[in-house]
Amino acid sequence: MKLTILGCYAATPRTFTNPTSQVLEIKNHLFLIDCGEGTQVELRRNKIKFSKVKHIFISHLHGDHCFGLVGLISTFRLLSRESELHVYGPKGIKEIISLQLKLSNSWTNYPLLFHELDSKKPQVIFEDDKVSVETIPLKHRIYTNGFLFREKPGLRKLLINEASDYNIDISLYQSIKMGKDVISNDGKVISNHLVTAPPDPPKSYAFCSDTVFDPGIVLQLRNITTLYHESTFLEEHVALAEPTKHSTAKQAGTIARDANVKKLILGHFSTRYGSIIPFKEEAQTIFKEVELADDGKIFTL
Amino acid sequence: MKLTILGCYAATPRTFTNPTSQVLEIKNHLFLIDCGEGTQVELRRNKIKFSKVKHIFISHLHGDHCFGLVGLISTFRLLSRESELHVYGPKGIKEIISLQLKLSNSWTNYPLLFHELDSKKPQVIFEDDKVSVETIPLKHRIYTNGFLFREKPGLRKLLINEASDYNIDISLYQSIKMGKDVISNDGKVISNHLVTAPPDPPKSYAFCSDTVFDPGIVLQLRNITTLYHESTFLEEHVALAEPTKHSTAKQAGTIARDANVKKLILGHFSTRYGSIIPFKEEAQTIFKEVELADDGKIFTL
Repeated sequence: MKLTILGCYAATPRTFTNPTSQVLEIKNHLFLIDCGEGTQVELRRNKIKFSKVKHIFISHLHGDHCFGLVGLISTFRLLSRESELHVYGPKGIKEIISLQLKLSNSWTNYPLLFHELDSKKPQVIFEDDKVSVETIPLKHRIYTNGFLFREKPGLRKLLINEASDYNIDISLYQSIKMGKDVISNDGKVISNHLVTAPPDPPKSYAFCSDTVFDPGIVLQLRNITTLYHESTFLEEHVALAEPTKHSTAKQAGTIARDANVKKLILGHFSTRYGSIIPFKEEAQTIFKEVELADDGKIFTL
Repeated sequence: MKLTILGCYAATPRTFTNPTSQVLEIKNHLFLIDCGEGTQVELRRNKIKFSKVKHIFISHLHGDHCFGLVGLISTFRLLSRESELHVYGPKGIKEIISLQLKLSNSWTNYPLLFHELDSKKPQVIFEDDKVSVETIPLKHRIYTNGFLFREKPGLRKLLINEASDYNIDISLYQSIKMGKDVISNDGKVISNHLVTAPPDPPKSYAFCSDTVFDPGIVLQLRNITTLYHESTFLEEHVALAEPTKHSTAKQAGTIARDANVKKLILGHFSTRYGSIIPFKEEAQTIFKEVELADDGKIFTL
């Protein structure tokens, strides 16, 4: 799993900082999460192949998370895209994009499919044989979802030497990987656990931005591998966090600790701060495994 | 008059080229013309004071001319703007912006006034005592206007030595500048032309993008100071110009020559070309005074 941060700063695009957008590579998918103004330029800068983006997840309709979407959709058209594009986002997103395409007389030449969200409960919005994506209802000033990306458990690992020792025919190896007991060439029943090891534990990534501090999400995030949690403010500005429905670095650390995640990535920094280092230091007073997002940074999860 | 090019390339924003946007400083106004994605970042990069932009003119609703508008309007709000913002553009522009502000629950805290255009004839859309702005109906794939900015003639120039020689009281100088005859301290009628020189000839700037080659606009552009005319293509691709309703550099040169303008600035270059120098060379086969726009370039007109 690889996460590329295209932008991780709050509010407005600036000369050297971009609003929220990131790309998650997971099991051959390239999922784009949020799409602030300038995202298409950041995709180019980070050499991400436009045609590989087939699913876009939009957390909410504040501009710093979605104003780049219509431009990206239009550029896909200019690039003669043919494959489907799926957009998951709050109710209303289809109307915004459709109106602009209509008034510019620029309908897409590829299938553009909207999956509008309005549920306030977690729901699985994408699933195939390797990955699932579920919403994480967040508390912000407008309807907002985080997204939880989970790998599905892989096949069990074949212990090739043991399988050979037990005289198992090669044609049965796939059955063994799928967890089945098999019959050896000697006619004996070989219990699966004798010739396999458990698969690698499936990884998971949760994107939670924007949100006020909300312990209500901890249960859903329990034991996930990596949590990206917004930290617009430091504790010194905690009084701003509640009314604007944002979080502090310490609060993000608290969610990470209580959910027992493996790693916390902080992002959505207010540009009022001269340095983002204090965000890490503050979160680490609560939870040790903290990293800072930054534009152009790549995390191998 | 000062023109700052924020972006002058066609189609999509790229790592090192921006879609159309420019700022015209004229008689204490800062007029923003078109607003492609990323315009707010280019305004910052070019150190243009956001609060001084009070009028935005949008030629048409193709994305590379307007997708940055909603972001800029939102940023004005975050910057606690209080003064009026006037947006002039094709019918539909108000609906696009209003829908996005409504769905993001982010109404502006300053007066946002739309002046929607649908006339196919030139019309004056802004006027004060120093400047007028009129539309230039253009022929493109969708409803499009260019904009013609004209200084109004200034006051006549007082010839201070002559006025003194004719023994004219200082209190009459303003009358003289306004072209009036006055009575000297000796009781004589002094004809205005004896103590003034004509004002500087008023300057004018026309923005014409996007448009197919259209000799029909020549009459309106007659004798203006500076013409910005799109040249998406070189003549080698003239076969693409007509169906896409764009112009070549040679065609832009033809308009400039036939309208007897003083200077032609070329822009809206397709990114298919490795260099923009050939645009200048091609236009100069028809008309001598050609300059090339480029992102970040400033013209003192």
